[in-house]
This record gives sequence, C-alpha cells and structure tokens, in this order.
Amino acid sequence: MTTTSPAAQTAGRSLNPASPVRLAVVGTGWIGAFHARTVAERLPGVVLSAVVDPVTASARRVAGPFGAGVFTDLEGLLAADAADGVVISSPSTTHADLVVQAAEAGKAVFVEKPMAHTLEDADRAIAAARGAGVPLQLGFNRRFAADFASAHERVAAGGIGTPQLLRSLTRDPELADPARVKPWTIFTETLIHDFDTLNWFNPGARPVEVFAMGDALVAPEHKDRGLIDTAVVTIRYDNGALAVAEASFQAVYGYDVRGEFFGSGGMVTAGDVRATNMRYYGAAGQEAGTTRLNIELFAQAYTDELAAFAQSVRTGVPTGPDGGDARAALAIALAAIRSVSTGRPVSLGADGTPA
Amino acid sequence: MTTTSPAAQTAGRSLNPASPVRLAVVGTGWIGAFHARTVAERLPGVVLSAVVDPVTASARRVAGPFGAGVFTDLEGLLAADAADGVVISSPSTTHADLVVQAAEAGKAVFVEKPMAHTLEDADRAIAAARGAGVPLQLGFNRRFAADFASAHERVAAGGIGTPQLLRSLTRDPELADPARVKPWTIFTETLIHDFDTLNWFNPGARPVEVFAMGDALVAPEHKDRGLIDTAVVTIRYDNGALAVAEASFQAVYGYDVRGEFFGSGGMVTAGDVRATNMRYYGAAGQEAGTTRLNIELFAQAYTDELAAFAQSVRTGVPTGPDGGDARAALAIALAAIRSVSTGRPVSLGADGTPA
Amino acid sequence: MTTTSPAAQTAGRSLNPASPVRLAVVGTGWIGAFHARTVAERLPGVVLSAVVDPVTASARRVAGPFGAGVFTDLEGLLAADAADGVVISSPSTTHADLVVQAAEAGKAVFVEKPMAHTLEDADRAIAAARGAGVPLQLGFNRRFAADFASAHERVAAGGIGTPQLLRSLTRDPELADPARVKPWTIFTETLIHDFDTLNWFNPGARPVEVFAMGDALVAPEHKDRGLIDTAVVTIRYDNGALAVAEASFQAVYGYDVRGEFFGSGGMVTAGDVRATNMRYYGAAGQEAGTTRLNIELFAQAYTDELAAFAQSVRTGVPTGPDGGDARAALAIALAAIRSVSTGRPVSLGADGTPA
Amino acid sequence: MTTTSPAAQTAGRSLNPASPVRLAVVGTGWIGAFHARTVAERLPGVVLSAVVDPVTASARRVAGPFGAGVFTDLEGLLAADAADGVVISSPSTTHADLVVQAAEAGKAVFVEKPMAHTLEDADRAIAAARGAGVPLQLGFNRRFAADFASAHERVAAGGIGTPQLLRSLTRDPELADPARVKPWTIFTETLIHDFDTLNWFNPGARPVEVFAMGDALVAPEHKDRGLIDTAVVTIRYDNGALAVAEASFQAVYGYDVRGEFFGSGGMVTAGDVRATNMRYYGAAGQEAGTTRLNIELFAQAYTDELAAFAQSVRTGVPTGPDGGDARAALAIALAAIRSVSTGRPVSLGADGTPA
Repeated sequence: MTTTSPAAQTAGRSLNPASPVRLAVVGTGWIGAFHARTVAERLPGVVLSAVVDPVTASARRVAGPFGAGVFTDLEGLLAADAADGVVISSPSTTHADLVVQAAEAGKAVFVEKPMAHTLEDADRAIAAARGAGVPLQLGFNRRFAADFASAHERVAAGGIGTPQLLRSLTRDPELADPARVKPWTIFTETLIHDFDTLNWFNPGARPVEVFAMGDALVAPEHKDRGLIDTAVVTIRYDNGALAVAEASFQAVYGYDVRGEFFGSGGMVTAGDVRATNMRYYGAAGQEAGTTRLNIELFAQAYTDELAAFAQSVRTGVPTGPDGGDARAALAIALAAIRSVSTGRPVSLGADGTPA
Repeated sequence: MTTTSPAAQTAGRSLNPASPVRLAVVGTGWIGAFHARTVAERLPGVVLSAVVDPVTASARRVAGPFGAGVFTDLEGLLAADAADGVVISSPSTTHADLVVQAAEAGKAVFVEKPMAHTLEDADRAIAAARGAGVPLQLGFNRRFAADFASAHERVAAGGIGTPQLLRSLTRDPELADPARVKPWTIFTETLIHDFDTLNWFNPGARPVEVFAMGDALVAPEHKDRGLIDTAVVTIRYDNGALAVAEASFQAVYGYDVRGEFFGSGGMVTAGDVRATNMRYYGAAGQEAGTTRLNIELFAQAYTDELAAFAQSVRTGVPTGPDGGDARAALAIALAAIRSVSTGRPVSLGADGTPA
Repeated sequence: MTTTSPAAQTAGRSLNPASPVRLAVVGTGWIGAFHARTVAERLPGVVLSAVVDPVTASARRVAGPFGAGVFTDLEGLLAADAADGVVISSPSTTHADLVVQAAEAGKAVFVEKPMAHTLEDADRAIAAARGAGVPLQLGFNRRFAADFASAHERVAAGGIGTPQLLRSLTRDPELADPARVKPWTIFTETLIHDFDTLNWFNPGARPVEVFAMGDALVAPEHKDRGLIDTAVVTIRYDNGALAVAEASFQAVYGYDVRGEFFGSGGMVTAGDVRATNMRYYGAAGQEAGTTRLNIELFAQAYTDELAAFAQSVRTGVPTGPDGGDARAALAIALAAIRSVSTGRPVSLGADGTPA
Repeated sequence: MTTTSPAAQTAGRSLNPASPVRLAVVGTGWIGAFHARTVAERLPGVVLSAVVDPVTASARRVAGPFGAGVFTDLEGLLAADAADGVVISSPSTTHADLVVQAAEAGKAVFVEKPMAHTLEDADRAIAAARGAGVPLQLGFNRRFAADFASAHERVAAGGIGTPQLLRSLTRDPELADPARVKPWTIFTETLIHDFDTLNWFNPGARPVEVFAMGDALVAPEHKDRGLIDTAVVTIRYDNGALAVAEASFQAVYGYDVRGEFFGSGGMVTAGDVRATNMRYYGAAGQEAGTTRLNIELFAQAYTDELAAFAQSVRTGVPTGPDGGDARAALAIALAAIRSVSTGRPVSLGADGTPA
C-alpha cells in the first residue's frame, strides 16, 4: 500500500531495531491530536514520546493519556533529544522553519501539507533534510489510501499507457466557519492534495501551464474579501497530458475525494463517497450512506502513512512523498493563485516559477 | 442477444421474404395487449394481422389501432388463414390445447409460460409442434435480456467452469389483489421463469431432487386457502450443482429479477433493480431510482423475443427456448408443489416425474 | 423521458391524426442511414417517405428496403411535398441553409448538431423556423437518454440546489482515420454535446467566460496541421457555476459519456460505460463488458428523440432542444476555439459573442 | 460498529481503568497467531500477557515478539493469574471445556466459533459463564464488519419491516488441502457464521425447520469419505421468514461473504468481494481486484471484535454475540447435518433439538 519515491533521498542513520521508535507530534490542532493518537495507539513498535505546543494546556491534553512528554517549542524537544522523528502538524506558516530546525538537528521529519508557502521556503526545507541526511515525508495521505494506491499500481504497470486526461477532486462536507478561512486556502491546503495526486499519476512529467477559476459560491458573503471556496484548475504537462483539479468547501452529501486517470491504454478510477458496501432498497428506491469525515474515509491511510514514516525513522530509508513532491504541488498552487489573480493562464518554467 | 436452443427442432417451411410476417395474438389480457402492440409497432417487416379473444370488445380494443382482424376463437383465425404465426397469451390453462391446435394447422407458435400445467399436456404440445414441423417458442423473456444473455455467453464460453451453486430470483413489486391469485401460481407462473433460467445456466444437466418451502407472508389472510406468495426452492442437478430459486409477490422497492451463477471457474451475475445509471447524492446519502414494471425492466427482451419468433416464422428455423425447455421448467414447478404439499424433498426421474 | 424547452416556440400546424407522419431523411452518411432505419422501423404511425442525397446510389441504398422515395436535393423533395418533416443529417456545413430552406417551405425540421458553424447562421436558422412557425429540434440525443433525463428531473426539482460545479465528458472509442478529421471538429461536433448538456443542467444561466486547452495526443502526427483530439474546456456561468467539458477521440475501453452535476444541495451523476448489468468474477478479479458504439449506448435515446420529433410534426408543438439551444452550445464551441487559438480565456457577451 | 446482545448477561467485575487489560491467547494456529498480533499491536490499553499452546515452540514463536508469557495449558495460565481475559482459538473440539475452565476461574472469555459441537456442551459453557458472572463473547466477526453492522442498523430501525427472505453466504477462496477437512466442517466451522448472521437479522425469531443439500463438488475424490465442500441450507423461522445459507470451499475469484435481507418494508444488502474502490477500464472492459484473504476482508472487524471484548473485560459488561447466539447457530448446524444424513427436512423444537 505504501509507495516509494525515486531514490532522490538516500538512507540516513538507522535505529536499534530492538528499541521502540520515538515520535513527537508538533502542533495539537485536530490533525495533530489525531496523529498523536495514531502514533500512540496504532503503530506497533512506536511510542509517542513527546507533544509540542506553545499552549501547554493543549499539549498536555494530547500527551496525557499516553504519558508523553510535553514541550512548548521544538527547541526544547531537540535539546532534550526526546524523539527520533517529528510529526509537524502546526499551522502551515510555521512548517518550513520547523522542518529546517528538526532536520538540522538530525531528526527525521514528517510534515503536513503544505510544507511551505513559497518555493524558496520549500527549497530551504528540502536542502536541510538533504544536508542532514534525514528522511522528509509529506502528509499526502491519499498516496496511502488503498484504492488510490491500487490505481497507481495499475498506472505504474502501464495500465493506462501514456496519461492524457487526469482528474482529481476534493470536496469537504461543510464550510462551518467561513470567516476563519483565508482567501487562498483552497489552493494551498485543499487542492494541494489534488495537485500532488495529479503529479503522482503522471510520473516524470512537469506542469507547464496552469489556469484556474475560483469563486465564493458557498459563502458569497465573503467574496469581497477574496475568499475562494469553489475552484477548478486546469494543468497542462510537458508530456501533453491535460489535468483538472477541482474542489469545493461544501458537499452536503459528504467527504468526496476521487480521481480519474485516463490515457492511451485505458482508465483507472479511485474514490467513492459511499461509506460501506451496505445498500438499502425501500419504497423510495436504492440508498447508501456516505462518509462525512476525512479521518473516517482515510482512516487506513492516516495510519499507514505514519507507519511508513516510523519505518523510515527506524531504517533511515525515506519512503512516501517527499520534499520534492511537496514543492512540485506547491508550484501548481502558487500558479493557480496567480492565475486567479490575473485572470490568465500561467506558464511554469523548469524550476516551477512563472515563466 | 438472442439465443438458440440445440437443434432439437428442425427447420420447417419458410415464408416469402418479400412479404411481411403476419402474427396474430391470442388472448388480450395485459400481456396479450402488450405483445400486440410490440408486434404492431416494434417489429420491422411484421404486421399484427389478427387478435383473438372470446370477448369481442376486448379483441377489438387491442386490434383497432392497428387495423388487425378480430376473431372470437382460434378456429376462426385458422379457418381464415389470417396469420403465419400465433402468439398465445390467453389464460395459462388454455395454452396446451391452443398450441396443439395452432401447430396442427401448421402455424408457428409462440406461447407464454407456462405452456402447460401437466407433463402430459406439455408432451402433447411438443409432439404437435414436432409433428407439424413448426417452430414452438416459449415466452421465457429473461433469455433475451441483455445482461442475462451476456452472462450466459460467459457461461457457454466456460467462464464459470462447472456450475456448482446457482441462484435465480423473481420479486414482483406488488400483490395488488391476492384474492385473485391461485394457491400454486408462484410456482407455475412466476418461479417457472427462474426454473428455466437455472436450467439454461446449467446446460445438459438434469434436476434430480427438489425441495420447496412456501408461505403466505405478504397476504397471510389467504394462508388458509393455501395461497403461497413467498417461496424458496432448492434443486439438485445430476452434475452435482445445487440451485436456489426464490420468489416474492411483493417487493416494495420494485421489480427485482436477478441471477447468480457460480462454478469451479468463477461466477457471473445479472440483474439490477436500479432503473438507470442515474445516481443522486444528497444530505441523506446516495440514492437511485428503481424499476417498478416488468415491461420496463424487460422492454428490450419483450421486443427481441418476438423479433426472434417473427424471424423463425419467416425462416421456419426455430430459435429461443422451446417446448422441451417449457417441459423441463414445468417438471421442477410440479415437483416444488408436491414438495410443499408433502413437506419432503421430491426426487425426479429421467422423464421429469417424481421417482 | 423527453424534455420540453421553454415556450420559445409556439405551436404550428397540426396533421390529421389518422394519417401517418411522413418523415424524410436528408443525408445518408452513417447517422443519416441510422436515422432512416429508426424512422422506418421503430416509430409507430410514422413512415420514411423519402431519402435525399446528391449521391443517388447512396440514397437508393437507404431508401430501398423501406420503399421510400429518392431525391437528389431538398428542392426536389419540397417541390414534390414528399414529407411532413425533415431529418437533416447531411455534412454539418450544409445544415443552416437546409434548415432555412425546409422551414421556409413550412416543414418541421430535425437537424443534427451542429446546426450551424457561425452565430449568424444559427440566427438565420432560428429566424426561419420562427417565421414559418415550424418546430426546429436539435439532435442533442443525450437529452433523451434515460439516465441523463432522470438526472435532469432531479435538478429541475431542486435536488442539487444552485449549480456550482458541472462536468460533462465524451470519449469516442477510436480515432480510426485522423487524416479525415478537421482541426476544430472536437469542439463543433463532439464537445458541442457536452456544452449543450452543461447548459441544460444549469438552466437560465449564461456562460460568461471560456478557457480551453487542446492537443493532438491520440494522433500527434497530425499536430502540425492543427488537429485537436483531446481537449478540456472550463466555463464560468453568470450564476457563478464552474463547468468542465472534456473530450477524447480515443478511449480504448469504449464509448464513454458521463455527466456530474454538483450544487449547493447535492450532486447527480449519469452515464456508465459498462454495457449491461452483467458482472463476471474470475481468477483475475471482477470484470464487466463495455459499450463500444454510440448507437448501442444511445439506442433508446436515438429512437425517442425522433419519436418526439414525429410527435411535434403531428401536433405542431415543438419539443426537445431547439435552435436556441443549438446557438448557445455553438457560442461556447466558438469561444473554446478562440481560446485555444489565443491561449487565453475568452469572455462572452450577452449575445454569445466574445466581449 | 459494535453490537450488543440483549441483556441476557449481567455485568461482572470491572478492572482498574488505569491498568492495561491483560489478554491471553489460547491456541496458536493461524487465527490464534493473528488474534495475538491484534491484541498486542492494535488495541490501545491492552497487552498480550500470555500465549497458551501445548506445543511450546509454537507458543513461543507467537509470544516472543511481544514479550508475552508462555504456558502449555490453560491451568498454568489460570494458576499464574496471568490474564484478565482469554481468547480461545484452539481446535474447536476443545472450546467448550476451555470456556468452562476459564469462566469458572473468573476470566472473561472470547471464543472462536464453534463454541461447542453439541447443544449439551454449549449449555455447559453458557452455564459456566453465567454462574461465574463473566462475559462470554463469540468470534462471529461478521457482526463487527462495517457493512453488515450498518445493514443491521437499518433492520433494527425497521427498514425492512418483517423479515421474509434472508440470505447469507460464505465462499472461501481455496480448498488447499481437502484431506485435512472433516466431513461436516462446512456446517460447523463455515456456515455457522451464516446461521448466526441469519439469526441476527431475524431478531426474536426461532428456526423451526431446516433442510440441507451438500456435496463434494470441489474435491469429489473425497466424496466417499463424506466430505461436503459445497452446501445450501434452507431454514424456516417461526415468524414465517425463509432463509438460505450457502457455502463453498473454493471461489477462484476470492473470499466472498455477502448477505441479503428482504422483508415487507424493503431489502438491505452487505458484502462485496471487490477489494477497493479502484476500477480499471481497458481494452477488455472494466476490471476490479478482489479480496483473497478473510483477514483482509474483515481486518476492521477482527480488530473491533477484540476491542469490544477488551472493553468487556475492563467493565465487566458483556457485549457482542454471546453464548446463546453460539448455541442458536449450532442448533441449525446440527439440524443441517442431520438433514443431509437423512435426506429430509428436520424440525426443531423450542430447545433447538430435533422435534
């Protein structure tokens, strides 16, 4: 189920196989708390050694049930050498600096998306991990979802031939509090998953043109301040493939993540919002329940990506999506933002910057 | 989409290909009226030449829109030589005699199920058709349904290996007027389709044991008079295959006909009560509409079985399920009735009678 | 299953209900020949009265089996008053003039897509039909497909709320002879179906911006002459909805037409390339056959759209997609072509011309 | 996801919530080893405290990686008080005695199916647990599968009205070594799951008649010694419902477990042999992979049933299927065996013995 990037990274130090892997979680928002629980409860041979958050009460609440240490900042954790690897799930604006800091201290790093908000920051993070020889893994959980992974195996085996038309979409179930959402979040936090997915299913290809349309259709009262809650992004790759990424912040029927990957030799699809194989037939027709929670839809993926990371920490061999993947997805997000701003397609140079 | 029985029948007389095929419909209940309309409107090169019903007003109502002749009995039709082939859809107790009468007059015969209510009557009908050298085709429409036919192609090509576990079911959407339903109807009129389907998917095999359970679960107030509206029949074939036929007179969600055919090499399934490929996703989950009418579910099959019959009339070459198939399905129905009556399994001899 | 446009057209003359409706087919390419057969064989109360083609041998081949008259041009047909309505399926560059000519002669008109290649020609055709008071129906068969029609009913009933994200795609199974395909055909002949579908599912909304990407990925050896065989078009409507139309000339797995219509209240989907409900399970997993022919996928739609047209001819009351729908889809196609030519998004004015 | 039996059992002693729950696994065949791993790695707050097997090497192999104690028999474990609850997965002939022994020592018991091979032994086990006031939970994992549990919620909420036609089937992927399979195993070890499922979906009803057909179709060379590898069992309940349980030891396409539950108000289905939501479309049509392993199909259920057991151990409150459920399923299995032996239907008295 796991996938390995090309050997852009080399193996670093390995741990004593008899000792448990010590992972620390940095940031205790809902995904940080969830990661902490996964680390503590779902990963054999792994312990949640510490939780880091400037809000001590929050860190304590997460760490407490598992007897993990508590630190108010990463420096403290590193000074105490209280972890073999860190899982960074703090606010995304802090990601790049934390990656650099942890890597430079020789710690393996798992970081939630986006790894950075600029290509420069992405480059810094990548350079730090490479310089320190530590694994750097991105929280692109879709790569560990059973259906997407199985679909990718078909693609890797040549099942669709040359990619020609790709699609990836993300629809969250509810935009509960639009006032707390920043204007470009749909590109940097949501569609970044789809950009990574599209890159992943078009291996070796490079995006050369991006055009985006976006609007505040879910929360039109926030349009004036620039909120985008619905977006469609088209991408042209240098192998000719045309891709569409699409997102909405509110699908009343559930958490909907799907992909469709079409090429000269066939098509493969992944994703289904229906929660289980239960089907009901009544006087009103056929019905099925749908999934409303990402941690329900991706329960297995969230566990497996951290299991893969723990294994990387143990062996020193990186696995899963890496810093280069994070940068490649970010480049598309930034181009999409520019496209929306200018109303025009944006060409991308070889380094991912607008040509 | 059509299927041809083994050459148990031989080709009879053929018609002048330049002339339209003249078909008469005998019996103007709802299926007779529907067949009349299909013959008149959906079959190129075919005309509805006559309609036969002792109730003249009913015959006129069906014949009128198409300018077809009207007769009060089959004798009249035959005396006037007013058809090349007859479609018998009168009450089932009249079927066998009408088949014999039409066949002896040299007319090709399409007859609704059941062709007869006793094996002796079935034998008479078969002998008459054989003696006259005319095609005798049964109204087992499922054989012409696209999905069942496609499934059968897989089986015929060896896709499931040796049949081992077979299932066929029929569920009508509503038992509107239980008082009008005779006690054993579920076996002779409904499950007879499933018995034929099971025989069809286990070619060359012979049923050797039948056990049936039945009850009045939909209309329990009719249990005292022996009504059976829900039934399960298990059949053992001489090649070892075990089959289950199942029926209910009331499925609130629609008209449900499905088959599942499992063997040493795989499984093939057919049937889906969902009406179209439309799927709706709303706050309550995923939904799809279902089919409520057999003439909607089998629209294509009802046309194609009569198109195949018209072609037989034209060429003299029989096609589709024949009198032998009707007899084989009837033998199971009679054994099921006996099993319910005695509460025991019934063994079948080589001639289809209880051993 | 049929759909009625808003009363942009008014009822014209009606025919004697006792007489059969006489339809003539103009143009005897494969779709013309197919329409001729449908008219002659599948439509009760309708006759194929004539076939028109400058190549007399071709017209005779199509007309012959049904005893229809043969004309070398529309003038001849009209002079002989040999039809009550005409089905125009000649090369698309001739459509607009033929519509005008037939309408001015008082004939109801069914015309294949595209009705015209310029907005001016579309306006001429619409004006002619309106001036003559004759029905003008477009060959947008998808509107008559059971699943799309059922999906549209859900939308019309408010099932998806306000449309936000729409998708329509068409993939032909094989690009057999790329040398015969003109550069922009994918927009004017293929995607025009999708543009109409998107308009249909976003009723009352007007496209205001179009961006298109296209390439010769199936037949790259024809790229130099401008062939586009793969395309993605994004459309912004004045109600905010963002739509994607997507096409490929070669899907090795079959003829794939699907739609996905998402809004504030839910989502509805239509289309499935799997041919029937048959499913096979073997040692290699689960399998299902796919549809390779549009006349197989849309068999019912092709019949029903002509049945609706025949009914219009009989009653004088227009039905189905009309000239205005044809013009609206064409406007998007022309904008998509301009977008590909300029590499930029194209804004559309209220009259459908680039703003 | 978990389900609770009616309060036939009452809460026993509870544990100190601060201490981990100590579970011991008795028997180290493949399912025992799998349970040991689940206990050790997947259950928060639970430890694998001991492993019991007369073959010390086998116990050590399973216990080793988790530092669990090793015992050669249950007496040893109990004498050492080395567990709070036991998971019995030894050969099924030992189950009843081990349940009694563990219960009498005050330990909560999870036991694999079948709990016993005679009703007397089942009664003994039930009495021992009741007398000791300890939870007794059965390894009917299907009750914890997400789709079956979701289906059952619909039934419990009245979604299918009164049950009328029920179906449950189990097909194993491969009969690798038929020589090691005892004649009646298909009833006592495989179909026992289906009997429990049928009982579970027909709550409050009692089976009154059982008829079974079975044969050696997968391994006919073992027919002489009485092997049954393919079977169909029909069951009549006292509320009129008719049920079918079906099993095969070899489905080449995978591990196939499904249920279909039909009643006066609708139908609900569960189970799909397709492994994930991945779908592939190639030149040969549509394809999907299938599941070959029960521990893959039921991965979540295997974890959740033991999590529920651990919770029972902690709280003393029984949950999940209990001894009464085990006895009820066994009664059907024994009747099915008698039916095959006699060739006749078997009536069941109120106590589950042949009437």
